[in-house]
Amino acid sequence: MSSPSPWTVDHIGIAVPDIDAAIALYAATAGTSVTLREKLLDRGVELAFLNTGGTKLELLMPLRDDTPIAKFLAKRGPGLHHVCYKVDNIRQEMERLKQRGANLIDTTPRPGASGTIIAFLEPQSFSGVLTELCEYTGS
Amino acid sequence: MSSPSPWTVDHIGIAVPDIDAAIALYAATAGTSVTLREKLLDRGVELAFLNTGGTKLELLMPLRDDTPIAKFLAKRGPGLHHVCYKVDNIRQEMERLKQRGANLIDTTPRPGASGTIIAFLEPQSFSGVLTELCEYTGS
Repeated sequence: MSSPSPWTVDHIGIAVPDIDAAIALYAATAGTSVTLREKLLDRGVELAFLNTGGTKLELLMPLRDDTPIAKFLAKRGPGLHHVCYKVDNIRQEMERLKQRGANLIDTTPRPGASGTIIAFLEPQSFSGVLTELCEYTGS
Repeated sequence: MSSPSPWTVDHIGIAVPDIDAAIALYAATAGTSVTLREKLLDRGVELAFLNTGGTKLELLMPLRDDTPIAKFLAKRGPGLHHVCYKVDNIRQEMERLKQRGANLIDTTPRPGASGTIIAFLEPQSFSGVLTELCEYTGS
């Protein structure tokens, strides 16, 4: 069973230690502006979406040391963190991936930013790229 | 002096040890197809562009051990390598970035794939993200 249509890149996640500095940097260089900014206190992360001419950038700053983003920064330093693809039916795609042996980090979709449901997939199943799927639910 | 309009993400570069395996993997999972594949013998790299619903993916496989991609794989393993933004006037953008203190790896644009001219910029100037600019010259 193949995917009905190619996935579309929704955004590129970038881990940063200082989200204000990164917002200012990308505004000054790439001409981006912030379209959404929020603190997810339960996940210990502050995020900002930046509007480029196409695919969005998502800046991620840890709010606590015991979070995946803090651990990523401690291990690898700031930089590219993940790629998120928009799909029409996230549950169907997750089922399809599971059947072909991909490893899912989230086994069921969970709420993401901007009325999406999301799931992360293991980098090992995607050429070393931490991969996220999102579905816009319109709610 | 700000950018006239936001940069647009052209593609996401992914370093891989086996380009055939990665092409097959992304076809089976993300439904992508190859739009361009070539060996750049002078740079010691084989690349393949994959067509997603939006932003392209660029797979990069080293052909020799003394190349930046081989060194990246040896140090970090396969995964996200760079982000390339499409700009209208690459020389103007490079000059603007230089004036605001960004570090350029390429000080003048050089030929890229698909009739582009390209330049790489130091990760340190972009929140740890190796950043490429490209201009489609139409030639």
